[in-house]
Amino acid sequence: MVDKKLSGAGLRGQSAGETALCTVGQSGTGLTYRGYDIAELADKVSFEEVAHLLLKGHLPNSDELTAYRQKLKNLRGLPQPLKTVLEQIPADAHPMDVMRTGCSMLGNLEGEHSFEQQGDIADRLLAAFPSIICYWYRYSHDGVRIVTDTDDDQIGAHFLRLLHGKAPSELHAKVMDVSLILYAEHEFNASTFTARVCASTLSDMHSCVTGAIGSLRGPLHGGANEAAMDLIQDMQDEAHAIGTLKEKLANKEKIMGFGHAIYRESDPRNAIIKGWSAKLAEEFGDDRLYRVSVACEQLMWDEKKLFCNADFFHASAYHFMGIPTKLFTPIFVCSRLTGWAAHIMEQRANNRIIRPSADYTGEAPRSVPEMSAR
Amino acid sequence: MVDKKLSGAGLRGQSAGETALCTVGQSGTGLTYRGYDIAELADKVSFEEVAHLLLKGHLPNSDELTAYRQKLKNLRGLPQPLKTVLEQIPADAHPMDVMRTGCSMLGNLEGEHSFEQQGDIADRLLAAFPSIICYWYRYSHDGVRIVTDTDDDQIGAHFLRLLHGKAPSELHAKVMDVSLILYAEHEFNASTFTARVCASTLSDMHSCVTGAIGSLRGPLHGGANEAAMDLIQDMQDEAHAIGTLKEKLANKEKIMGFGHAIYRESDPRNAIIKGWSAKLAEEFGDDRLYRVSVACEQLMWDEKKLFCNADFFHASAYHFMGIPTKLFTPIFVCSRLTGWAAHIMEQRANNRIIRPSADYTGEAPRSVPEMSAR
Repeated sequence: MVDKKLSGAGLRGQSAGETALCTVGQSGTGLTYRGYDIAELADKVSFEEVAHLLLKGHLPNSDELTAYRQKLKNLRGLPQPLKTVLEQIPADAHPMDVMRTGCSMLGNLEGEHSFEQQGDIADRLLAAFPSIICYWYRYSHDGVRIVTDTDDDQIGAHFLRLLHGKAPSELHAKVMDVSLILYAEHEFNASTFTARVCASTLSDMHSCVTGAIGSLRGPLHGGANEAAMDLIQDMQDEAHAIGTLKEKLANKEKIMGFGHAIYRESDPRNAIIKGWSAKLAEEFGDDRLYRVSVACEQLMWDEKKLFCNADFFHASAYHFMGIPTKLFTPIFVCSRLTGWAAHIMEQRANNRIIRPSADYTGEAPRSVPEMSAR
Repeated sequence: MVDKKLSGAGLRGQSAGETALCTVGQSGTGLTYRGYDIAELADKVSFEEVAHLLLKGHLPNSDELTAYRQKLKNLRGLPQPLKTVLEQIPADAHPMDVMRTGCSMLGNLEGEHSFEQQGDIADRLLAAFPSIICYWYRYSHDGVRIVTDTDDDQIGAHFLRLLHGKAPSELHAKVMDVSLILYAEHEFNASTFTARVCASTLSDMHSCVTGAIGSLRGPLHGGANEAAMDLIQDMQDEAHAIGTLKEKLANKEKIMGFGHAIYRESDPRNAIIKGWSAKLAEEFGDDRLYRVSVACEQLMWDEKKLFCNADFFHASAYHFMGIPTKLFTPIFVCSRLTGWAAHIMEQRANNRIIRPSADYTGEAPRSVPEMSAR
């Protein structure tokens, strides 16, 4: 259930435009991309099909999917000047700063000179983002200059191979694929809205996406799965989890990974990633993080009627796949790029510059005092 | 006169928050920064005083101004990894992509780890931005690695010295100073709003400013003074100017540098920069560009009741100072950084994540078709 009538600060409940891409919380269906329910998409199709749906407007048929995957595979290489830039970034940099800089740098080398290029540029970013983050990560942390061209058909498997230097298990490849589907699109969230405001000036695709990355970096937005990991990683068992949370609630601390700005009763993405996290825990051989996550979910509902959002069980799921916590939000970027780019194209197709007003709360008109009188 | 009751697309006339920084078009005073009229500021104070006003909340006294200028002078150097990044960017890149990438890269090297650093980081960006654009420009165009530390007290003179490799004339230094004042702040314009949306996720200063640069890059926003230069540069005399414009109007082409989203009768910044452009034309010894600009202004008012905005006479003014057209918008960045940073700090001080809704215009709920049925 959503209350679109809410108003107040943060433009909450105020319409800032039109979209055909997504519904959040409408009609009881939870979350839809171009009319398809997220649960059905996560069950039946691959991330490349979702990317095609969002960016090209329809689910691909078999020939289209084969061609699209081949196109994306051909776009995974990074130009040398971009590699040189990534090699200048120290290991202790924020990985979202790396994504933001990598996207921005690519704009210098492969700029969008006409909106006719927008589809190709979106595909290029989709293919190159896993390469950018993994090239930097492996170089700065392991001193290795990886080859970013792989033969994996799917982006999720490609990402895991770049990160770990070997092919992922079938289960890991599947869960990464599902995860990328779940994070792909979510209407006018803050990063997507950032991209649309930028697009409304008729700026280029790289600028819009660079700006969106900067917004997703914020701890109130994309950082929630990392914060969830920080929360659960030291919980030894269910009792410890419950004790920790009760203490935080008593101290009125904000618990990341619970509740949502739009959803009121549940986040439709949670059940899906939770199910996969359970399977990963079984394969991993140590289900502690899964068990404490379940205990957290129960307690937060019992105590605060707050539900897990998409981010909470992503923390344990990513951890079971050996992904360093600091790369959680960059993965979000690799997925949400599809939604951002689709929104940028939609904004351009029916554009008016987004330029709101403000309520003035400052000084009344006054004269500039002489220096001696200040 | 402003009609704040306008509504419709682009959030026009809708309040998206509060600000104490600026009024645009209120009370007949045109444009005020923290209550001070833009005309009085441009007449009586320097850009560093305006930056202090916006970023620290008040006009500095003599000791404060001396200390602030010294602080900014000490922050003009660029770290080697940033220089290496700038050297990777080709001469034909869009200079706004360079600014965006330079700011983003600096975030990797000197990140904001606590909001307590925000004032210092704003000052650092204010001091470093002229260095970033000029280092890249001189390296990529002239093959020169310039030293970006100069002893100029003022940012405008510093910029001109980096660009031309010699001290500017007194008049040029003065006009650059005034220009930076005029462009410093303008309420919830698209780039500033981009910065605030990003700030509302509690992201870092570099992300917010990087996003704002991307929005300012758009031809509907910061690119107007460059477009005005493109318009006037080939006009041989007044008659040619009038003929060219009449033809464009007949073809319903958009003429950049005229009219404004908020102002309805005039842009209070125009008379100021127009006066300085006249003085520069005199010193320059060839007033053609000034004369054709005046002819354009008259014709656009007579034919369309459209007035020059801040950008139009900036084109001739910058040209008289030997500034390449492609650097016009980066200068805008060097100035508007002060407004952006002040808005970022203001957003943080009273924050709610900016997350509007959208009107859905897409497909009704539908089932995912089997691959063979697509």
